[in-house]
Amino acid sequence: MFKQITILGPGLLGASLLKAAKARGLCQSTAAWSRRAETRAKCEGQPWCDAVFADARKAVAKADLVIACTPVDTIVPLLEEIAPKLKAGALVTDVGSTKSLICRLGRAALPKKVAFVGSHPMAGSEKGGLEHANAELFQSRACFVTPLVDTPAKDVDRVTRFWKALGMEVASTTPEKHDEIVAHLSHLPHLLASAYCAYLGTRDPHWVHYAGPGLRDTTRVAAGDPKLWMAIAMENREEILRALDGLETELLHLRSALRNSQPIALQHLLERGRDFRARLRPLGEKC
Amino acid sequence: MFKQITILGPGLLGASLLKAAKARGLCQSTAAWSRRAETRAKCEGQPWCDAVFADARKAVAKADLVIACTPVDTIVPLLEEIAPKLKAGALVTDVGSTKSLICRLGRAALPKKVAFVGSHPMAGSEKGGLEHANAELFQSRACFVTPLVDTPAKDVDRVTRFWKALGMEVASTTPEKHDEIVAHLSHLPHLLASAYCAYLGTRDPHWVHYAGPGLRDTTRVAAGDPKLWMAIAMENREEILRALDGLETELLHLRSALRNSQPIALQHLLERGRDFRARLRPLGEKC
Repeated sequence: MFKQITILGPGLLGASLLKAAKARGLCQSTAAWSRRAETRAKCEGQPWCDAVFADARKAVAKADLVIACTPVDTIVPLLEEIAPKLKAGALVTDVGSTKSLICRLGRAALPKKVAFVGSHPMAGSEKGGLEHANAELFQSRACFVTPLVDTPAKDVDRVTRFWKALGMEVASTTPEKHDEIVAHLSHLPHLLASAYCAYLGTRDPHWVHYAGPGLRDTTRVAAGDPKLWMAIAMENREEILRALDGLETELLHLRSALRNSQPIALQHLLERGRDFRARLRPLGEKC
Repeated sequence: MFKQITILGPGLLGASLLKAAKARGLCQSTAAWSRRAETRAKCEGQPWCDAVFADARKAVAKADLVIACTPVDTIVPLLEEIAPKLKAGALVTDVGSTKSLICRLGRAALPKKVAFVGSHPMAGSEKGGLEHANAELFQSRACFVTPLVDTPAKDVDRVTRFWKALGMEVASTTPEKHDEIVAHLSHLPHLLASAYCAYLGTRDPHWVHYAGPGLRDTTRVAAGDPKLWMAIAMENREEILRALDGLETELLHLRSALRNSQPIALQHLLERGRDFRARLRPLGEKC
């Protein structure tokens, strides 16, 4: 499908991408760039990595597909850096968890001769790092592609076919709608888990011994990298705040039902929650 | 250890208890009582159930250990019902997720000749029902025993030894302290997950297709039985409201960091959350 795929930032997602692309025969060769010597050293000799670069411009010079997998606040500067060296006709995308800013500024940063379509594969783990790279990470997971109004349909099609070839269920939407959706399904749940854990951290340290599987599951995402999630939350703060406002309405219902001893009102809220939860498809099941 | 153990309410916990007690040779015979003919029919012929009763008084008449495993709001009336038929020296306990009310009213409902100590084995699953009974459900999980100030030490010791024999890590505390702890570690996280799902249920129904493993984990507990959880939350509403007040302080920090674009403040909150999360022991690991 591609002669050369270059990953900028071979962390969990980037390394898994190359591993999966190799495993599925989607490219002839792969390349990775990292700013960190330690990460480059780890890439050397990996079967999924044919070349490692310390210079992002050199890493992309021969690529047909470039995928930026760095933290969201570094993607636009990186695209600005590589812009002069991209091949005509190259396809550029990213895996950032926020899309409005990246898609607008990213497109503006790149020359017209290259195609740019933002992506957000909804795959990952709180265990970051290329050590955990997994060719099956994308299988049956959802992936957004977020074209701008003037993105050519054939470019959207190229990036869509790539994600589908990795086994993903692809949905196309605007960057703005994407940011609203993920604020609700990913960013706010993450911040809530973090805020809840931060609160528990202010209480008796001995209580951790009594935590059961329920608390472990509801707070799992709070184990994620604070710096990465800070950058994501800051970029998408408007949508997250709107979602938090919506949640606060339900928390008022909850508080009122408890405060005023209204079992029927509380049971209704629990039933509405259960009904939504029942509609989440099990992991790995097709849309 | 016991001649006869009687379970009142053979749901997931009750049935698992008898299965585990049989498997570990903790009793000579087992009995179960259920108000529902359908549940009694399911118990008939189960290898972990030697006798099934439609009358709770008859079910407990020969028991040395009686364990009430019904919803929290039905435990005290049930203890009142069986009180006249209990053997002298019998040990009575329960598995309710709230303890203050049950321990005070439960003790008062029972004759002096029987021992009563409240318990709360922190084991379970959102998949209820005796079909899911599992003898290993209690292994390495935490269990509270919650004596009153005048509960004889030898009674506390008897119930403690029983839970330890099932593989549990037993902690003894007052019913009031127990209710504060579980409001934080179990009840409020559950209600938050339900409130979050209830809120998502008000948004675009199509969004469920984009939910990833993070949302699935953080909301898993919201799949629990609304009626059971309504009763638990109502009994422990004072402590849950206090915990919710504490959480709201963190949510104000979160909102302020987002609203005012304060990345350092947000990262600090995320770091505090991650640090607490790192202290939760992995499932199955000893205290």
